[in-house]
Formats: sequence, structure tokens, C-alpha cells
Amino acid sequence: MALRTQLVNTRITPRFAGICTFCRYPRLEEVAPEARPVDWAVYGVPFDSGVTFRPGARFGPRAVRDASQYVKPYHIEHDVNVAEVFSLADGGDSPVRPYSLKENADVVASFAASLADPSTRLLAVGGDHSIAYANIKAAWQRRQQAGGGGGKGGLPVIHFDSHLDTVDTVWGEKWGHASPFIRAIEDGLIDPTRMISIGIKGPLNTRDDLQYAKDKGITVVSPDRWRAEGAKLAAEFLAKLKGEPAYLTFDIDVVDPAFAPGTGTPSVGGLTSGEALSAVRAFKGVKLAGADVVEVLPDRDVSDITAFLAAHIVFEVIALDAAGR
Amino acid sequence: MALRTQLVNTRITPRFAGICTFCRYPRLEEVAPEARPVDWAVYGVPFDSGVTFRPGARFGPRAVRDASQYVKPYHIEHDVNVAEVFSLADGGDSPVRPYSLKENADVVASFAASLADPSTRLLAVGGDHSIAYANIKAAWQRRQQAGGGGGKGGLPVIHFDSHLDTVDTVWGEKWGHASPFIRAIEDGLIDPTRMISIGIKGPLNTRDDLQYAKDKGITVVSPDRWRAEGAKLAAEFLAKLKGEPAYLTFDIDVVDPAFAPGTGTPSVGGLTSGEALSAVRAFKGVKLAGADVVEVLPDRDVSDITAFLAAHIVFEVIALDAAGR
Amino acid sequence: MALRTQLVNTRITPRFAGICTFCRYPRLEEVAPEARPVDWAVYGVPFDSGVTFRPGARFGPRAVRDASQYVKPYHIEHDVNVAEVFSLADGGDSPVRPYSLKENADVVASFAASLADPSTRLLAVGGDHSIAYANIKAAWQRRQQAGGGGGKGGLPVIHFDSHLDTVDTVWGEKWGHASPFIRAIEDGLIDPTRMISIGIKGPLNTRDDLQYAKDKGITVVSPDRWRAEGAKLAAEFLAKLKGEPAYLTFDIDVVDPAFAPGTGTPSVGGLTSGEALSAVRAFKGVKLAGADVVEVLPDRDVSDITAFLAAHIVFEVIALDAAGR
Amino acid sequence: MALRTQLVNTRITPRFAGICTFCRYPRLEEVAPEARPVDWAVYGVPFDSGVTFRPGARFGPRAVRDASQYVKPYHIEHDVNVAEVFSLADGGDSPVRPYSLKENADVVASFAASLADPSTRLLAVGGDHSIAYANIKAAWQRRQQAGGGGGKGGLPVIHFDSHLDTVDTVWGEKWGHASPFIRAIEDGLIDPTRMISIGIKGPLNTRDDLQYAKDKGITVVSPDRWRAEGAKLAAEFLAKLKGEPAYLTFDIDVVDPAFAPGTGTPSVGGLTSGEALSAVRAFKGVKLAGADVVEVLPDRDVSDITAFLAAHIVFEVIALDAAGR
Amino acid sequence: MALRTQLVNTRITPRFAGICTFCRYPRLEEVAPEARPVDWAVYGVPFDSGVTFRPGARFGPRAVRDASQYVKPYHIEHDVNVAEVFSLADGGDSPVRPYSLKENADVVASFAASLADPSTRLLAVGGDHSIAYANIKAAWQRRQQAGGGGGKGGLPVIHFDSHLDTVDTVWGEKWGHASPFIRAIEDGLIDPTRMISIGIKGPLNTRDDLQYAKDKGITVVSPDRWRAEGAKLAAEFLAKLKGEPAYLTFDIDVVDPAFAPGTGTPSVGGLTSGEALSAVRAFKGVKLAGADVVEVLPDRDVSDITAFLAAHIVFEVIALDAAGR
Amino acid sequence: MALRTQLVNTRITPRFAGICTFCRYPRLEEVAPEARPVDWAVYGVPFDSGVTFRPGARFGPRAVRDASQYVKPYHIEHDVNVAEVFSLADGGDSPVRPYSLKENADVVASFAASLADPSTRLLAVGGDHSIAYANIKAAWQRRQQAGGGGGKGGLPVIHFDSHLDTVDTVWGEKWGHASPFIRAIEDGLIDPTRMISIGIKGPLNTRDDLQYAKDKGITVVSPDRWRAEGAKLAAEFLAKLKGEPAYLTFDIDVVDPAFAPGTGTPSVGGLTSGEALSAVRAFKGVKLAGADVVEVLPDRDVSDITAFLAAHIVFEVIALDAAGR
Repeated sequence: MALRTQLVNTRITPRFAGICTFCRYPRLEEVAPEARPVDWAVYGVPFDSGVTFRPGARFGPRAVRDASQYVKPYHIEHDVNVAEVFSLADGGDSPVRPYSLKENADVVASFAASLADPSTRLLAVGGDHSIAYANIKAAWQRRQQAGGGGGKGGLPVIHFDSHLDTVDTVWGEKWGHASPFIRAIEDGLIDPTRMISIGIKGPLNTRDDLQYAKDKGITVVSPDRWRAEGAKLAAEFLAKLKGEPAYLTFDIDVVDPAFAPGTGTPSVGGLTSGEALSAVRAFKGVKLAGADVVEVLPDRDVSDITAFLAAHIVFEVIALDAAGR
Repeated sequence: MALRTQLVNTRITPRFAGICTFCRYPRLEEVAPEARPVDWAVYGVPFDSGVTFRPGARFGPRAVRDASQYVKPYHIEHDVNVAEVFSLADGGDSPVRPYSLKENADVVASFAASLADPSTRLLAVGGDHSIAYANIKAAWQRRQQAGGGGGKGGLPVIHFDSHLDTVDTVWGEKWGHASPFIRAIEDGLIDPTRMISIGIKGPLNTRDDLQYAKDKGITVVSPDRWRAEGAKLAAEFLAKLKGEPAYLTFDIDVVDPAFAPGTGTPSVGGLTSGEALSAVRAFKGVKLAGADVVEVLPDRDVSDITAFLAAHIVFEVIALDAAGR
Repeated sequence: MALRTQLVNTRITPRFAGICTFCRYPRLEEVAPEARPVDWAVYGVPFDSGVTFRPGARFGPRAVRDASQYVKPYHIEHDVNVAEVFSLADGGDSPVRPYSLKENADVVASFAASLADPSTRLLAVGGDHSIAYANIKAAWQRRQQAGGGGGKGGLPVIHFDSHLDTVDTVWGEKWGHASPFIRAIEDGLIDPTRMISIGIKGPLNTRDDLQYAKDKGITVVSPDRWRAEGAKLAAEFLAKLKGEPAYLTFDIDVVDPAFAPGTGTPSVGGLTSGEALSAVRAFKGVKLAGADVVEVLPDRDVSDITAFLAAHIVFEVIALDAAGR
Repeated sequence: MALRTQLVNTRITPRFAGICTFCRYPRLEEVAPEARPVDWAVYGVPFDSGVTFRPGARFGPRAVRDASQYVKPYHIEHDVNVAEVFSLADGGDSPVRPYSLKENADVVASFAASLADPSTRLLAVGGDHSIAYANIKAAWQRRQQAGGGGGKGGLPVIHFDSHLDTVDTVWGEKWGHASPFIRAIEDGLIDPTRMISIGIKGPLNTRDDLQYAKDKGITVVSPDRWRAEGAKLAAEFLAKLKGEPAYLTFDIDVVDPAFAPGTGTPSVGGLTSGEALSAVRAFKGVKLAGADVVEVLPDRDVSDITAFLAAHIVFEVIALDAAGR
Repeated sequence: MALRTQLVNTRITPRFAGICTFCRYPRLEEVAPEARPVDWAVYGVPFDSGVTFRPGARFGPRAVRDASQYVKPYHIEHDVNVAEVFSLADGGDSPVRPYSLKENADVVASFAASLADPSTRLLAVGGDHSIAYANIKAAWQRRQQAGGGGGKGGLPVIHFDSHLDTVDTVWGEKWGHASPFIRAIEDGLIDPTRMISIGIKGPLNTRDDLQYAKDKGITVVSPDRWRAEGAKLAAEFLAKLKGEPAYLTFDIDVVDPAFAPGTGTPSVGGLTSGEALSAVRAFKGVKLAGADVVEVLPDRDVSDITAFLAAHIVFEVIALDAAGR
Repeated sequence: MALRTQLVNTRITPRFAGICTFCRYPRLEEVAPEARPVDWAVYGVPFDSGVTFRPGARFGPRAVRDASQYVKPYHIEHDVNVAEVFSLADGGDSPVRPYSLKENADVVASFAASLADPSTRLLAVGGDHSIAYANIKAAWQRRQQAGGGGGKGGLPVIHFDSHLDTVDTVWGEKWGHASPFIRAIEDGLIDPTRMISIGIKGPLNTRDDLQYAKDKGITVVSPDRWRAEGAKLAAEFLAKLKGEPAYLTFDIDVVDPAFAPGTGTPSVGGLTSGEALSAVRAFKGVKLAGADVVEVLPDRDVSDITAFLAAHIVFEVIALDAAGR
């Protein structure tokens, strides 16, 4: 087996000690040449100017870094140790532009584009959901650069969320956290016919809020429908991929506020954490082109349970990719 | 379609802004003549002198008003927009008598009796469960005034709660929050043979605590039984109504403390919020004669998740009625 | 005595009940003609896009409205009952533009300009400190319209804060919460030679951060200096006014985090709440042209003590003006 | 020296262990005959139906018991070890009548009257301030039974509070927490001309709220006045006693909300905890006839700092008496 | 029926009042001779020096005592009133040795060995899971003393936990909270072939972490497997007992952090509280030889929901035994 | 001026972004050769097994790192920019031995001894106060190695604390957090005749607890005495130094719980944060040989105010040294 990056040693630095990096991965600039290129670089995007309700997710990456000190590398269900399979690194935090959403999308996209090796997959930790656009863009660019049979028509997307995030504009702004997927679809970065949005629920402002997704062919799945037929839906999605890698975007508000109080636009009646983990695992076999975990708002968290869950979602996503390769 | 009341405009007053009314409905006195009479008036009863354990639910209406700013009007599952179907208003808070339970029951009943138009249904936000008596009384009076085939034998009741609330007296007092339903049954306001109590669980003080409900023919349903045969039970209940409207009373402690920590007499092993929402939706087809949502205790809440859930229960109840008409 | 606005009656609506307006003042649109024009209109500006660290002050007006239900009208030290001396109203919340700081400054200024009667003084409740610019602008315009000997050279300012807020730009933005006073000075709205900034403390980024204030002649007073010679400084300030009204701006972070944990850029070693109240009272005799109380961030508050303090500062400011007339 | 009660041994039962009694004193029924009669019995009154704003102080005795596990017995400033000077016991909790204020006053007074030996002084831990009446009554009765030169004209009182608590009735009720001292004065239990109320502050509802205290000759002292001339005021008070014991009543809201967030009617600008402790110590030389520490509301506390402070006030009061004998 | 111990009377001492003992049981030393020997003694072990991540469970017994005031004695599902079936007592807290794990194991085992009557079953409330060893040892010794067909091969064990707790050593220490079951197996106190560990989940440090349990024949059950085939697994376990009593050990971290945030090594995706209660009930018919409920960490709890749940687990365990006899 | 280490750039990485190091100093291993040796290395000691009451300070270094992101480098009162005067670095966290106090003292001392350059001063962030011993030992060794007129008789010490920490043993252990100074005095590391302990207060277990300090000649100063004569005491202390550097140890519990709720053995009536900062500044002119800031317990903190204060104390200490050179 190739040489892998090493996690911080818990014998020397217990999980309550040390400078915090995501999941105790080494910082990208510290990775030894023989462990390069890294398979996944996890980086933060401390940005929340895109929100429509509660701000504060700019502190999300810091909270997830802290909470992720307790994340261990071996995944029982997939029987895979991510630290043995992958080289992994903390890519630091992207620069941000708190006073301009469009500029921010550009600066994050630019940072992501240059992060690590072109073969490295990127997992962005938000920040509000608006930051997904930039990471999707980077993932799509890498996918195109990789060439081969893929790289056309945009990325397939596995989307966990209480909200569709396909609103055109809010208060005249096109780049807020309600709009990343409409922008990404417009720009050809994702393929809505191979996009599944899991956990979508109401109430909504109007019936029309569902129209765009329907028109574009997004598979919209409520929590109850997922509980009833999630396995079938996941299989159908995987079948459409034909081996192409997909992008995974996880808005923590897909989970009920009891499990994730620390978020900006909570939605009652959501998945339990167990259901959410199972839902991610249901896509076993998928290869990932990139991912994000967003909308952790530490100021509303209690006893860090939201950040702790988000940190484990980061792990779950990487383990899913490990199981799929 | 008739003219309806308008919600506060989120373009001008975002959901984090403005003087708070329930679900951003207009205050009753502001409703334009052409939008009258309102179909539902939501009002608060800031009273908690009836409690047997933790007080503080007097701050419930305020917390629910605040949290309800995020409630939107379109219900996906019922495919109904309550703001298009109904005129809706915030009726303000009832006067209360913190130092006397009986006086309080009277003053709230009197306030409710005179609130809005006789055709308006009333949704009371508590406050402890003792306040349900007064709102049930008002609902029953309106029902009787409406005449027709109904109005005899008391209201059918859909009751969500961890507790039966049919204790005769506590510490010598007949009007506390453990007694609203025994009082209402004694006074002929509700019909126990058409009352279903969902979510009832132990531990109890004695086996005898179940006896009154059994004797009166109340359908008592534990969480596990609801999970197993809720659909059937709801159908049976609906069948008994023969078109008559029912009263719905929702004690937030029916939900597990993880989902509703902010309550006075929590009970472990309760429904999840998703189960609770589904349980309300299971009664689709019912017409409501009135309702209450009670026992939100903000001082014990965390990150406002209890108030936020309660605010959505208020919406769910009104949407249920909208779907049934 | 002229007819005054009436506070909500605590006999009917206890302080834990009712729809919340600032200090239980009537809403502006409800004020009876005979109680008009109101002397002070208190309004909210739920805006926090100007922050450089923690956002969330957009929820400040809501929290202050809630906490202010406990504010009573009689001030012992000044021996004045503000509800007997003044007509007072809640002006609601200004529209905001969360995605653009400059647009927001304009829209708030426009709202303020048209609020109530030209003779009404405006007290803005933030929101971050960037919103002070708009309210100062409105105050200055009213001052100029009032004519007479005043209205030249900008308003004198009593400024409570841990920070000078005279930074030219942050991340390229001129309208953030570190810059309201440099902008107001540039635009001639305030007179820096008659501006006293109380509670200023470090650490700072560089020594140069103090330079602008020095150059412009602002009187910069540290907490320790205020403790030692506050009375003298207040007297000197009052002497410079020659009867002209001053503007008062109160950033809650002037108070130590123990007293005001709910704020975005806290500063250790601040005034106690008692010292802060005494400091406001030290300016007895001043007439006010307008005021703001800003930077309450409820998500970081504990047991609402920050909002509760801010609500009492609102009262203290109005009482100061009452004592000065 | 006579045999004294023993505190729980910290070598066997660390301060984080064991069934909690006040300050680790033995329960009254456990006190050995040779350590009887106890000098002070500390008992709880878990009652809060007398409040006008936030309820919850019924949980005060439990919180103070828990927090008091860390209280040690040696007082540096008075150079006295209360456990060497006094026999001390936890008298348990009084029965209460949550649904009736007058009945409660009677049942608590009855419990207090029969508690321990007639020579034992009683320290009641509230509960809301309404419970002071019953304990004052018991103290006065014991004082009268003790005979001698005292026992006429009512007890002298050292009163720490933000509020005078001399309101005649609230919402028609005479026995609420705003009224204990008017009732006690009416009943001749306390002597208002030898009553000093320290920490009184505004805002008030009206100027008239101060009138009763003035008329009766209560010495009303604001925080600022206490800071300026507390030593003199204490000396004057002591001079009036002529050796007679006084009653001490401590409402935790006399301390600023930063130090005591866990209380029902907080008041900004209060004493610091250091000032409060010094204020109690300023009465060195007084002998106490009884005492109470009230208005701890754990649901609003943060990190138990209010209960922790209250527990130390209990100690401070007993140490004051020890230093005076 | 034999005379039983009496719970504290809620008519005199409401659930918010009084000195707290576990579930309001009398203190062991207070139990009347005619109610002896007690069937169960619940005692605390305020010890947390065995933790590998967050300490603080030393405050667990205190928190559970407080929260348990609301536990009632009648169990609906088992139709049993534990206070009628059993004599029950609070055994106080064991002495502890915070600075030495091995010494602590010895001192707790010694305390347990001498607690109450040899026929009394012991329920230890932790404290971290390391304390289970001592209580298992005491249970096994009592079992052996009782003689008969049992008392060989170690106790059968029902184990609820997210973790196996069979790590040999951590940081060179053999007696920490990751190791109680490997030590108990080594010492022959428990029989791994009749041990079922329910709720075990990842992530783990390595695949090898599962090996010891496999080698020893422990039945390891993940949450999902329990949901799918719990009834069958419980039946199989019961079948193996052949009437012998089992030991039950409940680590609160088996429940998801949403339900039990107050614990030291939380694990996402756990059972809900309802699932956990059902899981305990699934073993109906078992007789218990002893039990523990551990890892409640109050400093991380929110609104006491973890302690409240743990208190009800204590009740559930005793009710299970009552139902089995 | 010599080349200095650079702080993280706030234009690229705002204070809410990035991997956290103490005060945004570079990690020690990243410091460029031309900026070496660093003047101060700040490192964490995540250890709390020495506590006698509440554990959890092992998370102190992490919390202080997070909170210190807001610390700026220019000190107004001393008119010094520490980043211009000093090269500064984060030395990471020391290895710890959670299961053995003596081993831990050794391993931390060993880590400290080898940290950075012998000329670098070390500031240890705790962790409980027991860790001070190891850092004092390292400071004394460096002082001795530096030779010259100093290096005899042990270090002079400026000690801020509510407690003397000179207890010989607790529960048989010599290396707990109540004992660092008795151990350091025994080992000749500090000179008690030039040790000033500021903020010491009761209550104590016995009068004898003060004896050791008196016998050894430590200057023990209560909060009130410091307020009255702090300037004089500081001058006297400085006079005794004759230019020798002193060690500064700051236990956050010297500050009142209102300002520092997040600590393990809080003490009511402490200094305010402003008084504490002034007290440190009172020693202007001192040169430091090393320092520690200890006893931050994040699980008991509210809104991070304790960690935030501690982070600023770290800065204050370094600025004091900068002002003294």
C-alpha cells in the first residue's frame, strides 16, 4: 500500500489536546511528498453573508475542527479505515469576502481551484450553503480536466437538505444561500436530471417554490418518502451514474433541530441523525467528485452536538468514497 | 376567492425583523373589514399557576410569537396555502389572574367568548394545560350557537399529550393543569367517548391514574401503539365524527424532551417531532372547532427548538383544518 | 399637562404578556391625535451585515423589545416619569438591505427621515453600529430643519463604546460597523471637536488606530480615566454645548462581557452596568437630538441580561433627555 | 467548648459527592443530643406563587443545597469558624401550598414555629420573597418568647434588595412577593424605624412607590449612596439596636444580573458580589434573630453562579451572627 | 404483602421540594426494620478519573438524584408498581479515590460489598463506566454467596453502550472507563458468552477494536441490527439464562447525543430514548443480579434532559426486575 | 529592528477564520530562522487530573486558542505593540499523563525544558494549576542557565488567585492543583519571601490554611486590600526584585464568577476583569522569567467569556514583559 498521511497520535496528543485540524489530518502544507497527492483535502469556508435568516455559520469551520478531534478513522458498516485507504489533509480556510456575495463566490472558487493536486477531491465545510457553488465549480473543473467519458453535462448530485435552494433571487441578490443550485444548473456545473434532493420539507412560502425543481427534473424526496423507499431511490440514482462520480452536498438542517439545533434555517420534522447516517450509507458504491457539509451555526448549537454530528458527516462522506473505490 | 388577511411582507420586514405576531398574521384589530370575519384567531394565554412541577409557561405565548416568525404558509403534504384559504389574525393575549386558578379560568373563558366573530375558530397558545378548559368552553359555546345537527354531547377531542390530565384535584385544587379534561367532561363540554389521547405514557403514581379515562371511554394510545396502528385509530376516530368538527389540544410534552426540552413536566420516550407532525396529519379530513397548543416553557428551552416546534404545530393545526374544508 | 401616550396596562397585560413593543409604548400608528406628535419614537434596525467578527445583531431589536417589557417609567435619580413628560412610541423596524451596506444606509436613512413628526427625536435600536450613521443623518437633518442658532457644524456626540469606530475601510468596505463616525464626520453630520468617546480601550491592531480621533479632536476617554475624572469631563462637554442638543450613541460593548456577553466584538475590562448607568446620568442637563443603542447580539446572550441591560439603557437615555428639558 | 455538629467529611465525601444538605450541615433529625439545641437551622421554602414576573424560585432551595456543597466554614475577615462556634443543621423544606398565597404563609409560619428548639435561629432559603413574612413571624415569636428587654415593637431589619417590597396589593392579592414588609409592618413583626433597605433602585412604576417606606421611616439606600456612606449608615443602624438582635433579609436581586442572572425580577446597576459581601460584613457586631436568602431562580441561572453566590450569602449571614456573639 | 419502604409524600413535599434522594427513596439508614432487607439499594459513585475524553461524570450522581425527583413508581407496560413490590433505598455515595484508578476500584468494591443486606441488589449510578467493575464484583460475590445452581462462570450481562469497553489499556492504565469488561472477564466476574452488547457503533480507531469481543463470544449488536431483530436477540439471550439472574449495565451514551448530550464520549446515530426504553423492556422476564447506569456528565447536559433520562432508566431497570419476579 | 514573527493576516484570514493558534502567532516549527529565537512561546497543558472539585480544564488550551483569535497586539496603556517588540510562537500542547499526577509533572517539565531556545520565555496555558509546577521548574532552569547575578534562591513570583495553593496533600496526593507552590518552594524553584499572592479570599476549611504562607513569608493580599493599597504593594514587590525577572502565575478564579464562570473552584467576591487587568499592569517595569494562565474550564463557561478573558490575560502578561524591557 502506498504511504498515507498520518493522523495526530492520540498517545501523545489526546483528543482533548493540540491545535485542531479537521479530523486530526495533517495540514496540507505539512504532507510529506511520498504521501502526495492527497486524496481528499478538507477545507473551511467561513462565510455566512448569504443567509436569509440567522447568520453565524462563518464560525462553522472552527466548530467542526474542534468537534472533529473525536472522529476516528475506521468505519464499521463499510469495513474501511479511511486513513489506510486515503491520504487526507486539512486545506485550511479559504479567503472570504464578507461584504460581497459575488466576489466571495469568485474568491472561494479561485482558492478551491488551486488547492492541492488536480486529482485531489475537495470537501468544503461551511459556512452557509451559498459556498457550495464555488466548490461544485472546482469539482466540475477537475472532473473536466480529468477527461475520459465523464465531464459533460454537469455533475450528478446527492443533496441532503430541508430546502431545495433553487430560489432565483432573494432581496435582489442572486448568490445567497437559497440559490446555489439554480446558479450551478444555469452554469452547467450540475446535471439536475441526476440530482436527488433528500429531506425536502415544508412549510414553504408558496406552492411555486417546488416548480423549478420539477421543471428541471430533480428528484425531490421528503423525509417520509425517504423512510419508505430510500433504498430503491438510491439504487435508481446509482444506476443513472454508470460509474461517473457524483457530488455530495449535505446541509445540516436536513436533520431535525433536536439533533442539529445549531443551524440557521431549521426545519422541524427532519431526519434523525441515525437516519441521516443511514441515508449517506445507502449510496454505497458511488464514487465522489467532491462534497460539502454546510450550515453549522455554532452560536445556536447546544453542547456542540451539531458540530459533532457535522464532523461525523464529513467522515461518513469520505468513508462513502473509500467504500466506493 | 374572498379577500384574505395578508401576512407581513418578507421583502420589507424579513423574518428576523418587526414586531412579532403569531405567524406574522395581522393583529385582529387591524384586519380590514373585507377580510372579516377571520377564520382563525390565534391568541395567547400567559398563565402557569396551574402547574404541579416547573412553572414558566406564562412566557410561552411570547416565545411562540417570536419563533413563529419563521413559519411559512404553504403546506406541502396537504397541498394547501393557509393564507390563501383563510383569513387569520393574532388575537393578542387574554387577561389572566395569576393568583387564582378559578378566576383565571373564568376571565380567559370570558375573553375567548368575546373574541372576534362567533364563526371564528380560536387557537389558544399556552400557558399551562389548565387554560385549555376555557378555550374548549368557548369552542363548545360557538358550536352550540352555530346550531344544526351538532352541538350536543360535547366536542369530540383529538388530544396529544404524555399525560391524561384527568386528575380530580391536586393539593386540593380542581383547576390545575392536571385536571382540564375531567372538568370539561363534568361540564359536558367534551364527549369522552369521542376523545382520543395520543402519546400517553408512564411512569404514573399509581395504576388508578388510568381508571377515569377507562371508565369514561377515552381512547388512550401509547406512543408504541400509535406507531403500530395510528392510521387505523385515526380512521376510526374520524368515522365517529360523522362530519362534526372536533377540538384539538396539543401538549408539547407529548414530544420527547430531546425535541421539546422547554416544558414543565417532560416525559421520556415520547414521539419525535416527525412522528408528532405525521400524527396530526393523520387526521386529515377533520374539521376543527378550536384548538390549543400548550406547555411551552421557554426558560427550559434550548436554542428555542421547543418554541419553534410549537409554532409549527400551530401552523399544522390550521393547515389540518384548511385541508378538511 | 398635555395628553401623553399610555403604556400598556400591567393590570390587564402583565409584563410577561402581550405583543411586545419597545418599553410597552404604543405603536406609532396607534398614537391618538391628541398625543401627537410623539417626543421620541424608538425603532429597530435589524441589520448586522456590517460586522467584522460575530454577526447576529439583526436579532437585537426583537430581543430588546422582549426584554423591555420589564422597563418601568419612573426614574428615581432624575425624579422624572418619562411617560408623564413625553409622548412615546414604537416606530416599528426599518426596512433593511442585508446584502448591501451602502444601500442599507440609504434605506434606513430614508425610513428615519420620514418617521413620525419632524419634531420627534429618534432612538434607533440596532443592529450593528453601522446603522448609527443613518440615524445621525436623520437627527442632523431634523436639527437643521428646526433652524435657529443650531444646525451648523454637525451634532455634538456623547459616545459610549469600547471602540472608536473611525476606521476608514475594512476589507474594502466603507460602510461597516467600524466606520460610522468617520463617515459621519466626513459628511459633516457630527462635530468631532464636541464628541466624547467614553470607554475606549485596547488592545488595538496598531498604535495608528488612535490617530484619526486625535487628529479630529475627539475626546477619547478610557474606562479608568472616566472613573477618575468623569464628572469633570462631562461638565466640560456640557459647557461646550451652549444649550445645543447632542446625539447619544451607546454601543453595548462598552460594558464588560460579564454584564453584556451578548455582543459581537466584546472587550474585557469594560465598565460595569452600574458605572455605565452613572456615566449616562453624568450628562444630566443635556438635551438630546437623537440616540441609538446598538450591538446587542442575542445568540451570544445569557439569560437575556444583555438585552435587559440595553432595554434599560434605552430608558436611561430618554430619561436623560426628560431631565434635561 | 460545647460539642458541635459536624460537617460532612470531605475526606470521605468530596464536595462533588453525597446527598446534599445546606452547606453539608447534618439534617436536623440526625443531630446528636449533645450537639443540641442547634444555633441555626437552615430550611428551604420551595414556593414561588407570589411572583409578579418570572416564576421558578420554587427550585431555589434545591439549587442552593447543591451549590452550597462548596461552602467552607472558616471566615477570614471575621476570623471565625462557624462550625466551631455553632451547632448547625439543615431543617429540610417547609410544606408549601402552591395554589394559595395566604394558606402558604400560614403553613410555612406553622412549620417554622415548630422547627428545632425555640432558641434556634431560623434561616429560610426561598423561594420568592413572599416567604419572608412567615420566617419573620417565627423569628419575632421566638424573640418574644425569649422575653427580656426585647420583644416589643417588632424586629429591626437589615434588608438587601433592589425593591422595597412594600406594595399593598398586586392584582388584588395581599400576600405576593411585592408585599412581605407591608404585611409584616402591619402585623407589628418588624419595626420600620429600625429597618434599613440597601440597594433599592429604579426604574419604578411611579414616584409614589417610594412613599410608604418614607412614611414609615424606613432608611432607603441606593447602591451609589451605599458605596459612598455605607459604613456610616451601618454604624447608625447598629447604634439604634442597643444590643437587640435584628433580622436580615437578602433578596439576591440586590446584586447585578451579571452576578445573579438567576432571579425573577432582576435590576440593572446593582451591587457587585464583592460589594454585597462587604455590605453584609459592614454590620459586624449585630446579633441576628433570624434571616432569609430569597429569589434564586435556577432556570435563569448560568453555570449556577447565582446559587453559588446565594449559598455563600447563607454562610456570610451565619458568620456575621457568629462574629457578633 | 410485606411492609415496603415509602416514597417521600408528594402531598407534603412536592417534587420540586426536599432533600434529594434517588427517586425519593428513603436513605438506607432510615429504613425501618420491618421494611428490611431492601430489595434494591441505589447508590452513587462520583468518580470520573477513568475517562479518555471529557471528565465531569463525578457530578452524575448528584444530577440524577435531582432529576429523579420526578420519577413515579407505576410502570404501565409491565403493569407493576415498584414501590409496592420492593423495598427500595438510597445507599448514599461510595467513597472514591480521585487520584488513583486501582485504589478507587478497590474502595468502591469494598463499599459495595458491605452495603445493605447480602440479599439486596445494588444499582450503581456513575460516574464513568470504570466504576461498573466494582459493582459487578459485588454483584458476583453476592451471587456466589447465595449459592445454589448459579454462581459459576460469571454473570450474564445485558450491556447498553455505544462502545465495547474491552480495551486492554489506555495510556498504560488498565482501570479506565474503556476497560471494565475486559477486567471483569479476566477476573471471571462475567460470562462473555452470555453477554449482549447493544448499540455498539463506530467509528473506531481500528478494525481490531472489535476483535476481543468476537474472540470472547460477546454478542455485539449495532443500533440498526437491534431495530431489525432486537426481539429475537433478547429471546435468545433470555433462553441462555435458564433462570439465572443477569447483570445490566447502561451507558447513557448508547442514546443519541440529541437525547443525551450530557455525556463524555458521545456517539452519533444512537438509539432514541424511546428505542432505549423499549430495548430494556424487551428483556422482560429476566431477573437482575445488579445494575449500573453510568456516564452522565451534567456540565454538558442541556436542560437536564440527560439526567432526567438516566433517572428514568434507573426506574426502568428496577421495574424490569420487578416484572421478572 | 530585528525581524519578528508575523501574526496571521486579518485581511486574508479574518478573526473568525483559520486554524487556531494562540493569539494567531505562528506555530513554533514554522518560525523562520531569521525570526528566531522567539522571545515567548505559548503552549498548552491540557491536564486536569489535579482538581479537587470540577474537572474539565483539560479543554482550557483549546478554548483559549479559539478565543484568542480576537486578541490584537497593540497595548494602549503600555504603548507597546508586542508583535513589533517580540518574536512570538505557539509551542503546541505538551504531552500529558491523565492517569498520574507525578508522571504528568515530569513529562510536562521535560517538554518545557526542551521547548524552543533556552532564551525563550515560556507561557503555559492550563489546565489546572498543578501544571504551574512544571513550567516554573523550566523557567527556573533557564534562569539558572542564563547565569549572571540571578539564578539563586528561586524565582520571585507574582501570583493571582483566590487560593494560596500551598496545601501539602489532598487525599494523599502531593501533586494536585492545591499544592504547586508548596512543592515549588520545597524544591527551591521559587522564593516565598518575594512571592505576592493577590486576590486570596475565603471561606477556608480552617484558620490553619493560612499558616504555611505566613510562615514562609508570602505576601498574602485580599481583594479589598489590593483595592486599597495595590499600588504600594506592587512598588514594594518591584523594589525587592533589583532587576531580577519574576514569574507570573494567573489563576482565572481570582476573577469573580460573573467574569469567569468557566473555572473549577470559583470564589465569590473576586476582582472584576478591569481590576484584574489593572493589577497586572500595576507591575509595569517587571521583567518576566515565565508565566502561566490556568484553570479555564470551558464546559462551565458561558458565551466563552472566561476563555476570552484568559486569552487577553495571556496578552496582558506578554505586554507587561514587553513594557519592562
